[in-house]
Parts: sequence; C-alpha cells; structure tokens
Amino acid sequence: MSPAPAHVAGAGMVRFGKYPAEVTLESMALGAARAALADAGAGLGSVDGLYVGHVFGGPVAGQRIAAQLGLDGRPVSNHENYCASGATAVREAWVALAAGLHDVVLVIGVEKMTDRVAGGVRPDPGDLDAAVGYVMAAGHAMSARRYLADHEATREQIAAVAVKNHAHSVHNPWAQYRKPISLDQVLGARPIAEPLGLLDCSPISDGAAAVLLCNPAGLRRLGIAPTGPRVRGVGLVSGSVQTGLGDINAEDVSRRAGKEAWRLSGVEPGEIDLVEMHDCFTIAEIVRMEGLGLVPHGRGAAWAAEGMTALGGRLPVNPSGGLLSRGHPVGATGVAQVCELTWQLRGTAGGRQVDGARTALAYCKGGTVNGTDGGSVTTVVMTA
Amino acid sequence: MSPAPAHVAGAGMVRFGKYPAEVTLESMALGAARAALADAGAGLGSVDGLYVGHVFGGPVAGQRIAAQLGLDGRPVSNHENYCASGATAVREAWVALAAGLHDVVLVIGVEKMTDRVAGGVRPDPGDLDAAVGYVMAAGHAMSARRYLADHEATREQIAAVAVKNHAHSVHNPWAQYRKPISLDQVLGARPIAEPLGLLDCSPISDGAAAVLLCNPAGLRRLGIAPTGPRVRGVGLVSGSVQTGLGDINAEDVSRRAGKEAWRLSGVEPGEIDLVEMHDCFTIAEIVRMEGLGLVPHGRGAAWAAEGMTALGGRLPVNPSGGLLSRGHPVGATGVAQVCELTWQLRGTAGGRQVDGARTALAYCKGGTVNGTDGGSVTTVVMTA
Repeated sequence: MSPAPAHVAGAGMVRFGKYPAEVTLESMALGAARAALADAGAGLGSVDGLYVGHVFGGPVAGQRIAAQLGLDGRPVSNHENYCASGATAVREAWVALAAGLHDVVLVIGVEKMTDRVAGGVRPDPGDLDAAVGYVMAAGHAMSARRYLADHEATREQIAAVAVKNHAHSVHNPWAQYRKPISLDQVLGARPIAEPLGLLDCSPISDGAAAVLLCNPAGLRRLGIAPTGPRVRGVGLVSGSVQTGLGDINAEDVSRRAGKEAWRLSGVEPGEIDLVEMHDCFTIAEIVRMEGLGLVPHGRGAAWAAEGMTALGGRLPVNPSGGLLSRGHPVGATGVAQVCELTWQLRGTAGGRQVDGARTALAYCKGGTVNGTDGGSVTTVVMTA
Repeated sequence: MSPAPAHVAGAGMVRFGKYPAEVTLESMALGAARAALADAGAGLGSVDGLYVGHVFGGPVAGQRIAAQLGLDGRPVSNHENYCASGATAVREAWVALAAGLHDVVLVIGVEKMTDRVAGGVRPDPGDLDAAVGYVMAAGHAMSARRYLADHEATREQIAAVAVKNHAHSVHNPWAQYRKPISLDQVLGARPIAEPLGLLDCSPISDGAAAVLLCNPAGLRRLGIAPTGPRVRGVGLVSGSVQTGLGDINAEDVSRRAGKEAWRLSGVEPGEIDLVEMHDCFTIAEIVRMEGLGLVPHGRGAAWAAEGMTALGGRLPVNPSGGLLSRGHPVGATGVAQVCELTWQLRGTAGGRQVDGARTALAYCKGGTVNGTDGGSVTTVVMTA
C-alpha cells in the first residue's frame, strides 16, 4: 500500500541569494510561507501543522518561525537530512496527510548559510575522508575524471550543464543568478578541484521556500477543487553511491532512489516530462540522471552539450536553474524544487515553462558524496 | 480520523550516564537498537526504516548510525524538537505505520551531551531572555516561587519530587543514578537558582533508547501476536506555557498537549495509571501534571510529599526515576519514556512496577520554558 497523494494548494519562495544579517532565517521563512498561503488563497487559521526542513537553523527553528508567523500552538516538527532536509519535510507532511493526522499542512524549507556557515559547509571533525582532503568538491572532481576516462565525453560537455542551468534561470525570478554564462567562462573559471572550476559548483546561498499541502478533507476546507499538481510519492533511501569497491559513478543510491520513486508513485520512468535535479556540481547532474535510468549510461554529458536536457529538449533538467544557478540554501532546496514542479505542472512557469509538462521528478542528495555512510537521497514524483 | 495505533514489538536502552569520548553517539545508538531488536526477536532485515531523534548529533547522524548498524540503504530521517526530539521521532514513525508507508520501523533517541554540550545546553545567542539571565533554571525558579506564593505549598514538598524519583530509579538498571537521596540532601544541595538547588535539576547525560514499532502487517512479518503495548496516539503542540501575561504556572501548553493526547488516543484522562513526566526540574513535574489536569490545581506539591505520585500511590509519576534520576540525554528521553511505558504495560518493570498498569502517558517538553516561542510538548498515550 502506498500513502495517498497530497495536493499542492500553494507554493511560494523568497528569492535565493546572499542576504545581510538583518534578514534572518525566520524572516525568510515567513516570506515564503506567506507567499504559499497567498498562492492558495488560504489563511493561517486553515493550517493544522508545520513541517520545517533546515540544517543550520539551530534547535527548534521551526517553532521560532511558527511563533513569528502566527501559528503559535500548532504542531511543529524540524526535519534534518542535510541537503535533502526540505524534501524530507515534504515526505513527512505527505505521510501525515495520508494518515489523516492533518488535513492542511505548511512545509517550509529554509537556510541562512552566509551567517551560519561562513566559508562553506565544513566536514565533521570525525570525517576521516575529509581529513585527508577528500571533501565534497574533491569527490565530484574524481567522479568527473572517472567519467571522462570511461566514456567518450569531454570537459566541455560537462561544463555545458552550467551553461544550460544558468540560461534557464534567466527566466526565474527566484534564482540567485539570472545572467547567462558562456562555455568559455565555465572553462576559464578559477579551479576548485580539477577538472571542476568555480562555475561547476553550486554557491553558498540564503533562502526559503514553502508549499501548502492538503488531503481531500483539506481541499474541502480550503474550498479548492481537487485538481492541480499533486505529490504522488516521496522516496527516501540512504547508503553508498557505488556498489562495493566498484565504479565511483555507478550511482547505486540513485538507482535505488528511482526505484522507490516509481514504486511509491505508480509513475513509470518513461512518463517523466522534466526533472529538478540536485546539481550541486555539474558532473553530479550527469551521473545522477544516468543513475536514475532517465539518461542512457555514459551519455549524460553528451545530452547536456546537445541540448537534450535543455528547455525545448527531450527531457529538460533544472528549468529553474538548479542548485548551480537558482542557488542552494541547503534546507530550502528540496522545497524549492517542489515549488518549481508545481509551477511547471500548472503551466505558469513563464519563460522557463516546459511545454505540456504533466509528470515531473525532483531529486535531492544529502550527506557524503561517495562515502560508505551519511548519504540520503529523496525522490519526489508529482503529476499535474 | 486518528491514525491507527502502533505496536511496540521491542524496547531497549543503554544505561544513561556520563561516558568517555570513545563511547560515541553512534555506539550508544547501536547498543539501544540491538537491544530493541533482540527484545522483539527481530532481525535487521525486518526493518523498513529508521527514525532518529537527537539535537546535538550533527547533520545526518541517523544515517551514520544506520550505516554502522547494518541498515545502510534504508530510509532514515532525523527529527529535532529539542528535548522532545525522541518523542517527535516516535510520532513520525507512528504516522508512517498508520499510512502504510512502512510496516516495521526502528525509532532511536540518542544524545552524547558530555562531549558535545560541555557545561550544559547554552541558549541561542539571539535569546534576549537568556541575555538578561532568564535561563532555564531561572525560569523554573520563578515558577517555584510563584507556586509557593500562590498555594499552601512548601519548599520541602517541591523537594519531595527529587526524593521520590531517586527512590524509584534504585530499581531501574538503565538509570544514571541508582542511590536513594534524602530530603535533607535536596534541601542542602548547592543552590542553582533559588529556591532550586542542584538536586532539583536534571543532570547532563549521555544515552540512547530504541523501540521497534509495527503495524498489523509488520506484526505478521515478525510473527508476533497482536497483543502487548501499543502507542495509541502522540500529541504535539507548540507555543507559550502561560496564556497572555497571566500566571507563569498556568501551563496552557500542557493543557493543550493533554487535549491532543486524549483526542488522538481515544483514552480519557481518568484511565491513566502512570505517567512518565518531563521533570527537568522538580517544580516542572508538579506544574505540568496540574496543567494536564491529572493532579488538582495547586495540589501537586502536596501530592508528591504525601506519596500520591510515588510507586504504590494513587497515580505514580516517573517510576523510571524520570529526568532527575534516570538522566536526561535530551534526544533520547522521549524514546526512553516509551521504553519504560512498554515495560510497565507488559508488567516486567521489576521493583519499579506499577501494579495493574493498563494505560499510561509520557510527556516531553522541548525548547523555552516560559517564553512566547520555541516550545514544543509531546504526549504519548499507550495501552497494554
């Protein structure tokens, strides 16, 4: 038995970016929450509970947000799964609606990184991989090198992911970056972990996103017709990227996360019209799409370069601009992806609209990149 | 509609206490998890997902635990609601079972405080109350002073809570403290925030607790009869302790949490045979029991002194020793309470058994004590 779908009654964001200290975590969350409520035409009084995804907000951040929002008293829970925290909050909310615990819930993903994680996310002191230099960027650089060695792929093709995603977010008012970048800019950017340069990496960002989810009883309460985008299922898996000592790009965790997505949603991979993919690094978008089985093995870089994953292409990936260009306030990302899918499935995404989008997938990866522990992947499947 | 009850197939703990650095958060969680699985006679292969409550374990602590436990790959989520984190994880697990997302789930509450929170939990830098000295202990001291002024109660009666709870945990092999203490010891202890002294305050602790929960399909998978303790419902509320500018001891949050407990469980307050109560301070046990409506207003201190809330009394509170004597590793406490209720409802609690226990309540409070934000209270109702 799979829990029943949840309707997305409203979606809202504050623009991702870098904000000064006086723009607090709470104020960003409030902005997104109010936008989602306004989008649904719903008042605060209709909200049964609050699910908050964040990593660095400190204890009971969700309760601070609830109090300032005017939801004092309501059930509030905080959900942490690193960069998949927001999507994990969506998952718990979906389940609560299906179980009948609540009928209308507000899900907020939020992060203030520029204050809290100055200079970037630091590895845990006990992380032995990181202690010898195997940090996130190094892991993805190894992934890129292995990819180039194993397939008929080029550095330029990998860089094409950044060019594509920045081109998409020109049309996204919520994106941190809204200027197109050239292939030469990506190739000539400051090296981070070769072959990856600065523009192959997602930025440090602040931001918040929110969705109002409901079950059929909630729809009736809100006076909303049972049409429009629905969360059909949210997969969650953990564990190693690769299998055993095999290929660093085997993406076993993505394969398993995809399987959960199709099992829980009843949707077939071939039905997916667009993907919001966790492109924390250019190469990550490529190997994860392949791991899901949505792009043929070894062809992801070529697909990016050929426009197959661009707007107007065969399977658009990250019409929002993705983490690379919309930005990546870690706890907010999973909810922002659900906002983007909602707008795409409604057909209201403006200049970045995927024509005829009916079925979509959002993917988040939290925790270590290639280690044997600490990872989590979420897969949200939505239909129009 | 209230989600269906969850069966407790197994419960296990590691003894609460202060452990050296080499006893890691992960190793404590593993000890509790293995004890819960052994108690259920269940193998790791039967576990569908892992719900982990902690506050200070750092990002994706649950995934690190899962990997070391041998549950790599399974869905893992981390839940934070300060001192109610463990109970919040129980809540999300209960809901997931009711929704049919999972059939058998492992819930772990864990905290390593002696390493991570040396010297005690510090208030958030933005906490204006704390900046002027209104920290946890000060708030509870004010609560005690107000209680003494408002009711025919004495300092000795408040101290009786500590004497009682330490007497109980003489019989609890999982408790941090297992020696009885005298009234004179409580009254003569080093002052912390007058009238409260050291023995009126719960200690800094390390520890872990785990329960294996399942729905009817899970029971069939485990080959367990559908008898034994069940989680009937888990209430969760947030918000202010008092109402408006009224009495600091009005305990509106407890009143509301109790209402949620009865609503979700279908159990009446009069049916409760014993309570595991969040006695972070002696006075807190008193005012929270009153707030729930389980002890008459203004009579809680007298009830403690008269043995009404002791083992053998009218309504035993904290047969385990409570936070004061079992200890309080914050993320672990809510799950440890559910372990204690399980053993009590099975009739296997040995020297601390409440005779004929059929229905029980566990209460956790996380976040600020008297502030207008940041608080959360959970109420777990279980039946035999």
